[in-house]
Amino acid sequence: MIPVETVVWRERRLVILDQTRLPGEIRHITLTTAEEVWEAINVLRVRGAPAIGVCAAYGVLAALLHANPDNTIHAKAEQKRICEYLAGSRPTAVNLFYALDRMKGCADTVPDTAPATRFLETLESEANAIYAEDMAMCKAIGVHGAPLITEGCGVLTHCNAGGLATSGYGTALAPMYVAKEQGRAFSVYADETRPLMQGARLTAWELYQAGIDVTLICDSMAAVVMRQGRINLVIVGADRIAANGDTANKIGTFAVAALARLHQIPFYVAAPASTFDPNTADGGRIQIELRDPSEITYFMRQTVAPEGVNVYNPAFDITPADLISGFITDQGLLSPPYAQNFAAAFGWK
Amino acid sequence: MIPVETVVWRERRLVILDQTRLPGEIRHITLTTAEEVWEAINVLRVRGAPAIGVCAAYGVLAALLHANPDNTIHAKAEQKRICEYLAGSRPTAVNLFYALDRMKGCADTVPDTAPATRFLETLESEANAIYAEDMAMCKAIGVHGAPLITEGCGVLTHCNAGGLATSGYGTALAPMYVAKEQGRAFSVYADETRPLMQGARLTAWELYQAGIDVTLICDSMAAVVMRQGRINLVIVGADRIAANGDTANKIGTFAVAALARLHQIPFYVAAPASTFDPNTADGGRIQIELRDPSEITYFMRQTVAPEGVNVYNPAFDITPADLISGFITDQGLLSPPYAQNFAAAFGWK
Repeated sequence: MIPVETVVWRERRLVILDQTRLPGEIRHITLTTAEEVWEAINVLRVRGAPAIGVCAAYGVLAALLHANPDNTIHAKAEQKRICEYLAGSRPTAVNLFYALDRMKGCADTVPDTAPATRFLETLESEANAIYAEDMAMCKAIGVHGAPLITEGCGVLTHCNAGGLATSGYGTALAPMYVAKEQGRAFSVYADETRPLMQGARLTAWELYQAGIDVTLICDSMAAVVMRQGRINLVIVGADRIAANGDTANKIGTFAVAALARLHQIPFYVAAPASTFDPNTADGGRIQIELRDPSEITYFMRQTVAPEGVNVYNPAFDITPADLISGFITDQGLLSPPYAQNFAAAFGWK
Repeated sequence: MIPVETVVWRERRLVILDQTRLPGEIRHITLTTAEEVWEAINVLRVRGAPAIGVCAAYGVLAALLHANPDNTIHAKAEQKRICEYLAGSRPTAVNLFYALDRMKGCADTVPDTAPATRFLETLESEANAIYAEDMAMCKAIGVHGAPLITEGCGVLTHCNAGGLATSGYGTALAPMYVAKEQGRAFSVYADETRPLMQGARLTAWELYQAGIDVTLICDSMAAVVMRQGRINLVIVGADRIAANGDTANKIGTFAVAALARLHQIPFYVAAPASTFDPNTADGGRIQIELRDPSEITYFMRQTVAPEGVNVYNPAFDITPADLISGFITDQGLLSPPYAQNFAAAFGWK
């Protein structure tokens, strides 16, 4: 049922599906150096918070193997440098920092006097654990969210928080895969998600492959299908969730949430514990990455806007917690009051 | 100040700017046969309700000249056939029917015994009158709407209801051109307007050419710039306005109106009298054209979605009258109650 192998570690090599080539071409690439891993995360060859975390964990390992350190002191210094460097590849992705922190913490447990091979094996175990936890986490999100998708239901999603965004069932799409396994029929509307079209290229692709009834729409049509009564439920993913429930996700998510509220449609965010950030009090503290204007003024290398025009291109937006009906997490469905219920579910002090 | 010659009649030839080529290429084409006129309207080489009306009026004339009828009886039969044929090119565009009806009505005033040359000259005068009225209408809309655009104001618009949509200042953009002539500084946010990108290709292009401060955004970013306080006013055009004020306009307009309401931002529709349809009671009676899925699954002839996926692609949506703060018309600003105020302004019985 897993739609596609997004990030895999095979024979000590990091292999990813190059998602910038979809849906036209299914191309896997091997990432060997820290620079290659940084570039793959930065230009979205691998994307989606959990997949970025898994890729970064294995990326540290791949780059270290490439550096071929002759002792653990050397390896630790190199590992620190790689982690700092990779942390700059996507400033909004909390899973990136989570994975890098785990790799750093794990490195500290190995004595300086241990052989370099043992150091590398310890890191490899940790990266494998992050991968296995991601698989289990996706399944748990799917199981907790599936009851929301009733027979004949219409579900809208934005961007891609599917199997392509993780190493398993995905986050926002996991409840759909599980609902399908449970034998229910339902339809999905996928926002194409400008400017990078992850909804068209990735979500529509992976749901279609999985035999789920999916209809592709432009972002600006979500309001219309809501008004027509075709949508009973919205599920999106998240890049970072503040302690109060404010949620950073792909640009356009806020508009969907606001329109869902206006049409009294439940709006859910699906995400694993690692996406919830106890150190970010609210959405106002989340740094929003501004991306290159050419993502909007060019399309597939062809110009669609006048040369030199101003462009505003934020990668994410913040959906305020009060527009969110609930969070579908690997720890269960969480409802307001969020600060309190996050703390209880995730063991925050 | 007129940004561009969208539709012109010169030496008895109909010449239009091929807007499917913008912004990369400024190409004018001559339309000679009814089939060429039909195709140009259907594939949006000429678009925008008023420009379609002017193009259809001159199109009847061009096709008749091409048919070269030897007497008025023959000419009238041919003209009737052409009008019926062109009426099928864009089923939602009321200006198309308005212009064709005027050409038909004018034809009836010429006796069957008059020479064919006189018949053609009469039709030419009528088409010229439609063109001149369009020019005057745009200017009037601009003059009535300009006071809404105050110094330092942020204005958002969707699609293109500019000079490129008419033969003059445009409708939604006319108040901007007049406000600029009056010396005020303000900024405009232009939604790119998927799927056909009229906002990026046309609105951003013509405002940038005119030296107005314009910033291009994706449709899904409108909610964000509203929330950030950058927008004080929304002005859009219309394809058809029902007697109760419900407005058919480019897909995505309803979402903008709903989001403007949520952010308490005034939302205005700019349109000439000819776009208001006393025979359509409300938005539910307006036929919504469904367009080809390939407009969404392909972009500039490159595939962006999986082959065979379902697509929903309505060309227009309906913005309910209660989301509209007012109408900027050539007869002045009209406020609710609309049914009553439309009847008074337009002399409806």
